[in-house]
Amino acid sequence: MCGYHKGMIQLGILGGGQLAQMLTQAAIGLGIETVIFERSADSPAARRTQREVVGSWTDATALESFAVQCDLVTLENEFVDAAVLRWLEARGLAVYPSSATLAVIQDKLLQKQRIAAAGLALPPFRAVATPDDVLQAANEYGWPLLLKARREGYDGYGNATLRTAVDIAPAWNRLTHGGRQLLVEAFVPFTHELAVMIVRGRDGELRVYPVVETVQQNHICHIVRAPAPIAPTVAAQAVTLAQQAVQAVDGVGIFGVELFVLADGTVLYNEMAPRPHNSGHYTIEGCLTSQFENHLRAVLGWPLGATALRAPAVVMVNLLGQRNGAAYPEGIRAALAVDGAHIHLYGKREVRVGRKMGHVTALGTTLPEAEALARRAADQVEL
Amino acid sequence: MCGYHKGMIQLGILGGGQLAQMLTQAAIGLGIETVIFERSADSPAARRTQREVVGSWTDATALESFAVQCDLVTLENEFVDAAVLRWLEARGLAVYPSSATLAVIQDKLLQKQRIAAAGLALPPFRAVATPDDVLQAANEYGWPLLLKARREGYDGYGNATLRTAVDIAPAWNRLTHGGRQLLVEAFVPFTHELAVMIVRGRDGELRVYPVVETVQQNHICHIVRAPAPIAPTVAAQAVTLAQQAVQAVDGVGIFGVELFVLADGTVLYNEMAPRPHNSGHYTIEGCLTSQFENHLRAVLGWPLGATALRAPAVVMVNLLGQRNGAAYPEGIRAALAVDGAHIHLYGKREVRVGRKMGHVTALGTTLPEAEALARRAADQVEL
Repeated sequence: MCGYHKGMIQLGILGGGQLAQMLTQAAIGLGIETVIFERSADSPAARRTQREVVGSWTDATALESFAVQCDLVTLENEFVDAAVLRWLEARGLAVYPSSATLAVIQDKLLQKQRIAAAGLALPPFRAVATPDDVLQAANEYGWPLLLKARREGYDGYGNATLRTAVDIAPAWNRLTHGGRQLLVEAFVPFTHELAVMIVRGRDGELRVYPVVETVQQNHICHIVRAPAPIAPTVAAQAVTLAQQAVQAVDGVGIFGVELFVLADGTVLYNEMAPRPHNSGHYTIEGCLTSQFENHLRAVLGWPLGATALRAPAVVMVNLLGQRNGAAYPEGIRAALAVDGAHIHLYGKREVRVGRKMGHVTALGTTLPEAEALARRAADQVEL
Repeated sequence: MCGYHKGMIQLGILGGGQLAQMLTQAAIGLGIETVIFERSADSPAARRTQREVVGSWTDATALESFAVQCDLVTLENEFVDAAVLRWLEARGLAVYPSSATLAVIQDKLLQKQRIAAAGLALPPFRAVATPDDVLQAANEYGWPLLLKARREGYDGYGNATLRTAVDIAPAWNRLTHGGRQLLVEAFVPFTHELAVMIVRGRDGELRVYPVVETVQQNHICHIVRAPAPIAPTVAAQAVTLAQQAVQAVDGVGIFGVELFVLADGTVLYNEMAPRPHNSGHYTIEGCLTSQFENHLRAVLGWPLGATALRAPAVVMVNLLGQRNGAAYPEGIRAALAVDGAHIHLYGKREVRVGRKMGHVTALGTTLPEAEALARRAADQVEL
């Protein structure tokens, strides 16, 4: 690592959304300043530091002005091209996760190939070059079939569920827009979706957060229940799979690994994010060390923090936009009256329907108790 | 309150040290931006926002450029002259605590007179205009006697303990430097020092944090134990006294009230701070709502948060400078290896002997267990 800038560590973050904001919040108590590099000014994270670089990640001038301010670099989303990370690495900066890790993860085909090569269980998948390839895959895997862009999909964007052959053409046309390459994946009849946050240090030290259940609403994470209400044998399978997946990509930092559970208890790999993850927001109050603090520790090469739950049950509910327009922070006022609910806003100035505007976390002695508390607060929010 | 600035509440803070930094950290999740007004640039809090005003609080131009950015104003230390708050109030800004509250608290004589007038118990005190007045007070109150500046004392600065008449002249000369006025106070043989954080809303709603024991080292807070290991009757006295003290000054926001306990269980008022307080740092992890979040809620007129402990015992240990020189954030590395200890750094670029550089908090099932954990981590820190 380069020398620190006058006694403070300066950590560059590619991206300035809520994940970078919460990383910045965790950085404050650790003597770390963040340098936020985002395409537009006034991002949620940039407002929380004096070190903001505005521009395209692929603009050499902006990238250089970012690099000179950083002792090391991390990212808040996987859509930054791995070539940007390679440029920073070539310049001598420590970058975690590395360009090699990111290159594999940001391409869903390469990611799944790497996971399969590591011997981990996942639904059948393959690249498709034509609509006819999709039809052939459907004949083999059955309907419904998932058609996905290899790159830049999130929260359901970049994915389509095909139920019959008629669905192929419109989905193909939508997803290949801009010249994107696609893959198909067999639909698996899962009973639960799980997620596991894994933090892995520069030296390979690895710590695992509790296995959680995620509940999606229109492909967007809505509720997270920790620990997941599943059999211990299933949880153990999930932990093993998630650990091995992060090791398979040589990940350093925090990783969110998403998994499917089938009716017979089989656990399958779904996908992973090389960064703090929505399914790990519950760790801020719910665990001894938050996913954000542990990411900072990992990328700095510092000892990792304890990941144990602080209560028997923790539930997080996302605050999703329900209209389009300006956001008003005082809309959380009524929610704050719910004792014991922890409210987090992301500082987005505009609400859109379905946009992640914040979240609520509650701790309890049982999942239903914690969930009732979190929902009671979330239901009061009017953003 | 004025209109919000483009969907974010902008809260001005007079002062940019660690208390403003931790307020800023808590503000992030509530959709609040802080505007930091500090005499010099690059203060711990200002680095955590893009809204920094550098200058003297009494410079009209700087004050105006601060005021135009704020929807409302609070403070992180009581040394800002109440006239500055009055100016802001006259300009139409909401200011909490108010100029009237601050004017009483920042003058220890007025503060004690107000507390005495409210019928609350405190050690005998009186104003002294000459060294001879001090000698007369000693004849009446006995030795040792405390000589204090009426304004601007903190962490032992501005105080002297007089053990014999010989001590009067040098202490008088030191403390009256700059024309300061003094008071004397009887020394009370306390067995414990206690503190209670009280948060009071704009509407008078009041919530009380657990009574804690504070242990001083050279007049600087060193350890805080929550809950204080005292009899319930003593704790109840402390709570009543602290509540009434904050009501007596019509306080809005968070207040740290310091108390003495005598051998017979009598609780006496010592002093109060109209702001987040070192004895309340344990609330960040130790209570359902931190003192910082509750201060924000109170000054915004929002519902107050629950103040209950999250564990049977919580202990905070201050990280005090042990040398003079540059601070190195990686000095916390070894401390981070102590599982379950929560480390906080204040982002000060320079260490000085006795300077508050950070703190460590640990939760446990008993006070000795929590204290051992916090000390084990604190002992590892090399700043």
